[in-house]
Amino acid sequence: MDTPDRRNSTTQALGELCSLLGDRLSTAPAVREAHGKDQTWNPGAPPDAVAFVRDTGEVQKIVSICARYKTPVIAYGTGTSLEGHFSAPFGGISVDLSGMNRIIAVHADDLNATVEAGVTRKQLNAYLRDQGLFFPVDPGADASLGGMAATRASGTNAVRYGTMRENVLNLTAVMADGTVIKTGSRARKSSAGYDLTRLLVGSEGTLGIITEVTVKLYGIPESIVAGVCPFPSVEACCKATIQAIQMGLPVARIELVDAEHVKAFNAYSKLDLKVTPTLFLEFHGTEASTREQAETFGAIAEELGGGPFSWASKEEDRQKLWQARHDAFWATRALMPGKESFATDVCVPISRLAECVTETQADLAASGLYGPIVGHVGDGNFHVVLYCDRSDPDEVQRVKEAYGRLIDRAIAMEGTCTGEHGIGSGKVAYLEREHGPALGYMKAVKRALDPQNILNPGKNAAI
Amino acid sequence: MDTPDRRNSTTQALGELCSLLGDRLSTAPAVREAHGKDQTWNPGAPPDAVAFVRDTGEVQKIVSICARYKTPVIAYGTGTSLEGHFSAPFGGISVDLSGMNRIIAVHADDLNATVEAGVTRKQLNAYLRDQGLFFPVDPGADASLGGMAATRASGTNAVRYGTMRENVLNLTAVMADGTVIKTGSRARKSSAGYDLTRLLVGSEGTLGIITEVTVKLYGIPESIVAGVCPFPSVEACCKATIQAIQMGLPVARIELVDAEHVKAFNAYSKLDLKVTPTLFLEFHGTEASTREQAETFGAIAEELGGGPFSWASKEEDRQKLWQARHDAFWATRALMPGKESFATDVCVPISRLAECVTETQADLAASGLYGPIVGHVGDGNFHVVLYCDRSDPDEVQRVKEAYGRLIDRAIAMEGTCTGEHGIGSGKVAYLEREHGPALGYMKAVKRALDPQNILNPGKNAAI
Repeated sequence: MDTPDRRNSTTQALGELCSLLGDRLSTAPAVREAHGKDQTWNPGAPPDAVAFVRDTGEVQKIVSICARYKTPVIAYGTGTSLEGHFSAPFGGISVDLSGMNRIIAVHADDLNATVEAGVTRKQLNAYLRDQGLFFPVDPGADASLGGMAATRASGTNAVRYGTMRENVLNLTAVMADGTVIKTGSRARKSSAGYDLTRLLVGSEGTLGIITEVTVKLYGIPESIVAGVCPFPSVEACCKATIQAIQMGLPVARIELVDAEHVKAFNAYSKLDLKVTPTLFLEFHGTEASTREQAETFGAIAEELGGGPFSWASKEEDRQKLWQARHDAFWATRALMPGKESFATDVCVPISRLAECVTETQADLAASGLYGPIVGHVGDGNFHVVLYCDRSDPDEVQRVKEAYGRLIDRAIAMEGTCTGEHGIGSGKVAYLEREHGPALGYMKAVKRALDPQNILNPGKNAAI
Repeated sequence: MDTPDRRNSTTQALGELCSLLGDRLSTAPAVREAHGKDQTWNPGAPPDAVAFVRDTGEVQKIVSICARYKTPVIAYGTGTSLEGHFSAPFGGISVDLSGMNRIIAVHADDLNATVEAGVTRKQLNAYLRDQGLFFPVDPGADASLGGMAATRASGTNAVRYGTMRENVLNLTAVMADGTVIKTGSRARKSSAGYDLTRLLVGSEGTLGIITEVTVKLYGIPESIVAGVCPFPSVEACCKATIQAIQMGLPVARIELVDAEHVKAFNAYSKLDLKVTPTLFLEFHGTEASTREQAETFGAIAEELGGGPFSWASKEEDRQKLWQARHDAFWATRALMPGKESFATDVCVPISRLAECVTETQADLAASGLYGPIVGHVGDGNFHVVLYCDRSDPDEVQRVKEAYGRLIDRAIAMEGTCTGEHGIGSGKVAYLEREHGPALGYMKAVKRALDPQNILNPGKNAAI
């Protein structure tokens, strides 16, 4: 696509953008590189320039200019996405929204807040703490809320509070023709028209650039209890989860950590856990109800040959536990120095989870690969950490093939190729395998809303 | 639109449909009338014929034939929608899905079930009871799950369990070109591609005809406690609701009934409630937690000058209470014999609810209109029952104007023109007022997915 015509129109677009943004438009190689490559093995490609924007009006002007010159526009938040979402394979302008980090309004009585897209989840939670409120979606990284909405992010407590799909009330977005729209009201529910909010959530910047997000908030629970519970097998972990959820136990977090991961946690985070498949849990509620929940779970575990379930309500102890869980990436990376690690991400119906995990473990063993597993087991979502020495093409090939088989396995079990990381450029090939003829309608929506294909081309259904 | 050309193509389409369906294609006037007019004041229009279908394959064939002749296709479930959703202003074929009432699969471990679109919520719940599971969305009427998905229905316990938006996992739908698609897997979450499920939920048969629905299920709670709590004012009811939700009380139902409605319930359902704004509540959980929830709510009410909160856990007492709430329509209709009544449906942020209700009451009084109010107060959604003698054009006009002001008031308070009844043909005029430029993108999606505008033309964004 790098034709003389394109170079010419890009040059003209850059000229207009420079007049608009001054030194907030950067073409410095280091800045462009940083905005074109994520931390994974997905190939990166730098944009032609990076625009550091201040408000929705600026994004609108940028998109209008780019629309005139058919120049790609790629939204960038914190750069923590994992599937090559913000690479620029066709060049264009990276719109860095991290400077749009104002908390516009907190409506405590309505339990929602409106923030600019660059506000991160930790920033919002620090701001809310004094009001006794919190925003629950927690993908691990301190991602921006705009980016989390765009990738339909979730994480450890989606089992209780839902994902971004359930927690975004409305969005402000700049569409491909430069029009600014608001996708909904602040009412908690509505039956008025098509659900543009949910259409944009998960569209990865291919249908519109999200500039403001209204999210649901929750009261900080009176009591939080967290703990770990060892089990004899992955299957027993899954059975305990199913029983807990079926009986309506409102578990806030329930995370599967396989024996290999427990080893890594013990080494990296100085824990002393029994090396066996383990559940990390958290319960939210009143003092009485969290105690009741913990006791009920303990009884379920015991019946399945697991336990003892040791739990703590002191914040310090809880933090240590969840910090270990969040450090999983680093803990496992430390296991195999010199090798790169990356996280896979499939999700299956819970009833198939044990089978999917066990078959995957056997497959990895047969392929001579090592892959510790963590999972948001309450949702059936798990991550295998795969290692590879990228200078060894044979190993790279074996890893890629094993990941392909994992995805095929998940889809065959009525699951999905990605529970929370998204499609980006890394999983484009799997979209059709998962959706079949439905993909054609996604593409039709893309063509209708962005006929020039300027919004994040080459990602998700924008292909 | 009733040109000789159209009549000719409709005749040809009917001929092909008759060959396909035999006596399951009806052109009997009574059948057509019943499939073209709902129970409200929205004007009806009969379809040219009604097709009683048996499976997705038949729907696919019907849509393919109709696409060839540009004949409108209108999905019909139980006929309980309230905004003229299934009238046929441009003629065409009503596809009656009530015969597609098989429960295809219940996945108890995964807490979901796949059903044909014609299965009603009561049918599903009767089927599930022995397994200790239930489907929570309850719009009052025994609607079909396909229809509930299509209108994004909700009802009394959405505050805890969400609406159809949150409770549909995936759909099978026949698109305007006759292609059958499945919009997602059975995984509880996914970040793979655009959210076609949520795009079809609430699209009222204008983007595709839903033929199968996979919905989330929940374990029947060990304990259910329900009760009524009188308050000195609507405002106190709203404050109590806000406090309860803010402190994380997992209330399953919280319904506002104004004094006029209480009178109607007392008369119609032989209750003996104090005539004052009242909350009807329900709590789900363990024995201990429901007791704790009820006690906590009682304390909140007392602080706000309300109470006493009298509650019961016996099923018989609970059923009587909720039957009264569900009979609201009949109870209020009985108040003004000879007049027609119909339910309005707006939804605002909870913080504005008391204000919106109070201003509306004052407006009605000033307009010489009578309008008892019930509301899903936990969601900020309320219904004013308006009465009118349709032979009195002046009264009809005053009622319509008052409703228009109610909608304007709700939108001005960052709310929506419909919380749960939908747009249909009755509220098309309000879509633009609520969504502004966003409506253009809804229409673009409609044009992209149904370029001939054969799916339920004249409804929602299909205009």
